[in-house]
Amino acid sequence: MNEVDPLIRKFQKELSAGTVSFLLLAQLAKADEPLYGYQIAKQLEQDGDGMLSGKQSALYPVLRNLDAAGLLQSEVEPSVAGPPRRYYRITDFGREVFSAWRNTWQQTQTLVNTVLEGAPQ
Amino acid sequence: MNEVDPLIRKFQKELSAGTVSFLLLAQLAKADEPLYGYQIAKQLEQDGDGMLSGKQSALYPVLRNLDAAGLLQSEVEPSVAGPPRRYYRITDFGREVFSAWRNTWQQTQTLVNTVLEGAPQ
Repeated sequence: MNEVDPLIRKFQKELSAGTVSFLLLAQLAKADEPLYGYQIAKQLEQDGDGMLSGKQSALYPVLRNLDAAGLLQSEVEPSVAGPPRRYYRITDFGREVFSAWRNTWQQTQTLVNTVLEGAPQ
Repeated sequence: MNEVDPLIRKFQKELSAGTVSFLLLAQLAKADEPLYGYQIAKQLEQDGDGMLSGKQSALYPVLRNLDAAGLLQSEVEPSVAGPPRRYYRITDFGREVFSAWRNTWQQTQTLVNTVLEGAPQ
């Protein structure tokens, strides 16, 4: 651990604070059926190639917030083994927000990559 | 103004909280000479194609924080007209952090774009 590591973690944390709701909405926008938290987390972990491993627990409060804000809707169903599971699906409002956030993400990406152009490695 | 607008602004705000220090470091990593706040803001505004207009004042505290953390160093110089100006340059430590943040940014970009693949427009 050196002086740079805490600053890397800070930047990672800030970027993930901005993107985690967006990533969850994207997963659910792609899903053909309602998904429960663990399924969503596992898919994100696969896509993230390990980048998100060990962070599943951080996703649950975000799912609940998206649900409370009307971007998702959820239903609790009994599970064959283990406790009942809360299944989430994206709402029409959630799809609208997802589409707007996608534009915001593209703009941010374009801005950052424009500024990075010509910066020394 | 509709229901979606406040959620767009929230996402913009979160993304820019994560990226503004990175953008400022990038500008100064590219600069051949020390720059003062207004110059940096103007360049970012040009690169951002209006996305950052009206947000210059938000950049000054971030410059001061980067200075205090040793990523930049600064010097006050008298100006021909108007008050003295604080000129910033990036330090070696700042270049090291910039390079690490660039990797973090690339990883985040890859993750988000991977998850977006296949999501409906």
